[in-house]
Amino acid sequence: MLKRTAFVGGDSGSWSVLSVRPVVGQSLDHVSHVDVRPTADLASRGADVWVLEGQASNLRYATRDELTTLRSKQEPLGRPHARRAAMIPIKKTAAWWEMAQDERRAIFEETSQHTAIGLKYLPAIARQLYHCRDLGQPFDFVTWFEYAADDAGAFEDLVASLRATREWQFVEREVDIRLERQP
Amino acid sequence: MLKRTAFVGGDSGSWSVLSVRPVVGQSLDHVSHVDVRPTADLASRGADVWVLEGQASNLRYATRDELTTLRSKQEPLGRPHARRAAMIPIKKTAAWWEMAQDERRAIFEETSQHTAIGLKYLPAIARQLYHCRDLGQPFDFVTWFEYAADDAGAFEDLVASLRATREWQFVEREVDIRLERQP
Repeated sequence: MLKRTAFVGGDSGSWSVLSVRPVVGQSLDHVSHVDVRPTADLASRGADVWVLEGQASNLRYATRDELTTLRSKQEPLGRPHARRAAMIPIKKTAAWWEMAQDERRAIFEETSQHTAIGLKYLPAIARQLYHCRDLGQPFDFVTWFEYAADDAGAFEDLVASLRATREWQFVEREVDIRLERQP
Repeated sequence: MLKRTAFVGGDSGSWSVLSVRPVVGQSLDHVSHVDVRPTADLASRGADVWVLEGQASNLRYATRDELTTLRSKQEPLGRPHARRAAMIPIKKTAAWWEMAQDERRAIFEETSQHTAIGLKYLPAIARQLYHCRDLGQPFDFVTWFEYAADDAGAFEDLVASLRATREWQFVEREVDIRLERQP
């Protein structure tokens, strides 16, 4: 069975928050730390300000060729030198979810080149997508990125490229949280 | 936000159980009734034998043409004359989930004609798919079908056709529960 991940914003955790910025729609409350845990460990939640849950799951758009290329280049989360992270929760519009699979795929890749853009920044920028919509969460996805401080400029290019795509016209809420790994 | 549905097997509920049959792998315990409720209403669970949760969500394979055809022909659950139901929880293999989207789509429709087979039985047999995998459930899907007693033979044809497809070679657990609406 798949195991859920919880992103816990509060006053403690393995990542210190550098900034919390609303990109579209309502922000999340500012917190000093984010902790990333298996949902099963959500025991003491006294000082937590917010908790978002997500599920790492199968990819919904990538073709075999894209998947093979991605897997040959991408690196996992948790690399010791990757001390910076970005946590980007996103909610897409009802119009996005009412589209058929071929319509969503056409916007995601043929028009917006979502996978192709991400590939340009591999292996420097590692990423993991968590699905939240089916869990009844306020966001549809959380994407977690990790990179070295030296690659922070490249990361800005990556998110700017994605936000300029047609796919992003279907984003109705987005928060951008930047983090630094605790020593 | 999406709202989850719970399928509660026990000694009471709006559907009486006619049979519980394992198709592949382990069965579910026999119960006399199944109740279908919003997950939020899972208050008193004293006499419940099992609870499966699912999420009605966006379709993952249908193209725009298929979706338009489906919506022009399909009828909703809850039709008063549709007094029979089938609840079919299914779990697919790890090999299925490791495939890319285009590989899964090719088996689902181009090879197995999953949507095309279902279309032949519309509007007589209404269906609703619930996604369970991302919820960490023991099954990946629950499909709920409703039809009139006179269409029970057609329903047998429908499930036999689906079980004969290549897609079904990726099913590692399937239980077939037949039900009758309480008067």
